[in-house]
Amino acid sequence: MSTHALQELKKLYAQFKDETIENYFTFLKFESISTEEQFTPNLLACSKWLATYLKEIGLDVDIWQTSGHPVVFASYTKAGKEAPTLLIYNHYDVQPVDPLELWHSPPFHPTVREGEVYARGAVDDKGQCFYTIQALKALLKRDGKLPINIKMCIEGEEEKGSLGLSQILKSKAKELQADYLAVVDMGIPAPNTPAVTLGVRGICCLEVEMTGSKGDLHSGQHGGIAYNPLHAMVELLAKLRDPATGKVTVPGFYDDILPLSEEEKKQLTAEFDLERYQKEFEVDPVGGEKGFSTTERISQRPTIEINGINGGYSGPGFKTVIPAKALAKISCRLVPNQDPAKVSAKVIDFLKKQAPKGVKTEIRLLPGDGMAVRASPNSRIVKSFVQAYEEIFQKPCKQTLSGGSIPILAELAKASQASIVLLGMGLATDQIHAPNEHFGLDRLEKGFLLIARTIEILGNR
Amino acid sequence: MSTHALQELKKLYAQFKDETIENYFTFLKFESISTEEQFTPNLLACSKWLATYLKEIGLDVDIWQTSGHPVVFASYTKAGKEAPTLLIYNHYDVQPVDPLELWHSPPFHPTVREGEVYARGAVDDKGQCFYTIQALKALLKRDGKLPINIKMCIEGEEEKGSLGLSQILKSKAKELQADYLAVVDMGIPAPNTPAVTLGVRGICCLEVEMTGSKGDLHSGQHGGIAYNPLHAMVELLAKLRDPATGKVTVPGFYDDILPLSEEEKKQLTAEFDLERYQKEFEVDPVGGEKGFSTTERISQRPTIEINGINGGYSGPGFKTVIPAKALAKISCRLVPNQDPAKVSAKVIDFLKKQAPKGVKTEIRLLPGDGMAVRASPNSRIVKSFVQAYEEIFQKPCKQTLSGGSIPILAELAKASQASIVLLGMGLATDQIHAPNEHFGLDRLEKGFLLIARTIEILGNR
Repeated sequence: MSTHALQELKKLYAQFKDETIENYFTFLKFESISTEEQFTPNLLACSKWLATYLKEIGLDVDIWQTSGHPVVFASYTKAGKEAPTLLIYNHYDVQPVDPLELWHSPPFHPTVREGEVYARGAVDDKGQCFYTIQALKALLKRDGKLPINIKMCIEGEEEKGSLGLSQILKSKAKELQADYLAVVDMGIPAPNTPAVTLGVRGICCLEVEMTGSKGDLHSGQHGGIAYNPLHAMVELLAKLRDPATGKVTVPGFYDDILPLSEEEKKQLTAEFDLERYQKEFEVDPVGGEKGFSTTERISQRPTIEINGINGGYSGPGFKTVIPAKALAKISCRLVPNQDPAKVSAKVIDFLKKQAPKGVKTEIRLLPGDGMAVRASPNSRIVKSFVQAYEEIFQKPCKQTLSGGSIPILAELAKASQASIVLLGMGLATDQIHAPNEHFGLDRLEKGFLLIARTIEILGNR
Repeated sequence: MSTHALQELKKLYAQFKDETIENYFTFLKFESISTEEQFTPNLLACSKWLATYLKEIGLDVDIWQTSGHPVVFASYTKAGKEAPTLLIYNHYDVQPVDPLELWHSPPFHPTVREGEVYARGAVDDKGQCFYTIQALKALLKRDGKLPINIKMCIEGEEEKGSLGLSQILKSKAKELQADYLAVVDMGIPAPNTPAVTLGVRGICCLEVEMTGSKGDLHSGQHGGIAYNPLHAMVELLAKLRDPATGKVTVPGFYDDILPLSEEEKKQLTAEFDLERYQKEFEVDPVGGEKGFSTTERISQRPTIEINGINGGYSGPGFKTVIPAKALAKISCRLVPNQDPAKVSAKVIDFLKKQAPKGVKTEIRLLPGDGMAVRASPNSRIVKSFVQAYEEIFQKPCKQTLSGGSIPILAELAKASQASIVLLGMGLATDQIHAPNEHFGLDRLEKGFLLIARTIEILGNR
């Protein structure tokens, strides 16, 4: 029966394929970069387009204003009170595109090469959002109804920390209330390996600014007197890690971590393909803590990363400057039971105590922190997606943890009172957050099938 | 008699003042940034304008082609073989202008505010070059001749290391041959404190590039596996200095330094005005080696400085990236008897040995190294400038060392066989190499008087 149902969905996709790609490309063309203020009108236009599209397919649509970019909320409640309600989370905002010169085609001009769509947001998360929408649209067109109630919460600030959605969550608890929460912003370990994601890491971000003088100084006229903020910065940041063990040196950083239970370890069946990883990324996998496997280090252990440093002159040639300021951006990835507020306070305290004298050090906590989340492997929602994945791939579905973070999820799960699962069709090689982000047209179809089939399964079809 | 001569020169300047400012502004408008390739046509245009101007005032002019930007060489040899020959060194190239947004008026549109001319190169070195030229022009107009022979060597690559001039020095030894070499690219300790400069530090520059992966990575999906090149960079660069002593930790870094003799110490009469310095630059003067005075640290001791670091995202908001690459620019300031080739080899060796494993580290020596130089305080050229300074300021002239570097000088002094002195009218607060570089119109006049009066003194007038 399930095979038959899937065959029917494949036929349905074939009918919708052309318009899916066309509208997906329209969606990708909005320059919806949430972290850079000048793109605010583009985010607004994108949310409006999305709302109109969702209305046209037959959903009730609300645009929720926030302190930042709006949330597009769409719902289908005609399945009745007996039927379960599935809340789907996506986001329409994307990451910045720099360094622009490394893109082989313009980031907001979707281009297909060898079956892959190249564009910022092709996967994260416009691609995943759009196959979800098309699955709803196609089922509604075919059946005139859906077997379960659906709520879609598509926000515009995921890439900058979801502050706006976070602030309105409590007031929207009724609207968001659901049995299940499906976060369609994840991936699979390899093109032919299905997997549901049972959790993401938490995160907190901060910024360190060091100021040594009123303006940039000549390194000849001042070198030996002024304490160079770049020296101060490297001396401070070098203290964050013990290079011998790879451990974060901030006191108490690892305090609240709960080790995985044997049961949990057994359920995490996806293996980390180190050989493939090294080949793809040309990375020597020596980061993180010694004594833990790559799988553990990437998802079950917290990390601290310097995400950017800037100061002085680093263009062509040379400029003999002692910069007035040096800036660094730092983030921590956290695991369950680590409170981002507590961890960031510890990091800030450590940096303040270790900060060299002679320069002014300012440390700012940036918005966008969030707890780690974990799904229950035995929940109906996990099992339904597992079944759909297995039908599509004709292979056992793995269970995995992501090393990434979606800060809003812990709060969203709480507000909606829903049982969570994370899923998607991304691949680690899709270059999300990097130049030449891309998504396979084959995976666009598989994503469509995954959402449509899971809705059917949840509706007992 | 000398007072009378100076009064005459002041009158002469008054006659030339308007045209001096007008032509100075024309000179400043050329965007002659030597370190950035796209400005090559502007350097060419600037050198042509300069050559024409020097021809018109009555000098013989040659443009020397080099591997880089041309050298403008001008000479006056009609004073005869008995008269001394003074070689004057200047440069017409300037530093880059970024960060452009910090300029209060456009860098290549000279603007006068409260008697100060704001423009890139206003001091360094177009201002100092131009009062020199005007002094020659005015003397020639007034007297129809000069009392000594003059050679001007105005290069276009001082800010990028003088490679082109360096390569042709030997072949131009005959043209450059002189009794005295005056380097007009220096300053005075305070607006009313005259000083000649008896030396500059040497320099060597290098670049460290660390690569961790093929492209930028998502810090969630890779954090804990990939070794972040920014972590590797801070861990490596933090090893360059001992924060407790301020000493450079590179083995052998201080090996060849010759301590100053008591005689030399006695001659260095300029005092470092720490209070003024701190107020001007808002700097806590804790850089450099502990146990040495500020005067010693700024000019008599070598330093190592990080002039720039770049990697990852440091714009507004946040980007959770592990950058593929991190880049740092480093320079050392050297004192007499330190060979830049030897010192840079030691630094490179140290960095290579200390470089963390797991990222690829490339270290490149950049062009533009040069030995430190020292003038003899008892030479006729030093004494002549001292006399001129004292007549102009009506105060004893101090003797000082600069912490800056002009890499070509050691070689130029050797090629010309001349006895060197360094001088000028710059102030530490002129913002050279920084936004809002500026030069006082009063100092433009004083510079004119200094050059004109010294030529008279050398000509026994």
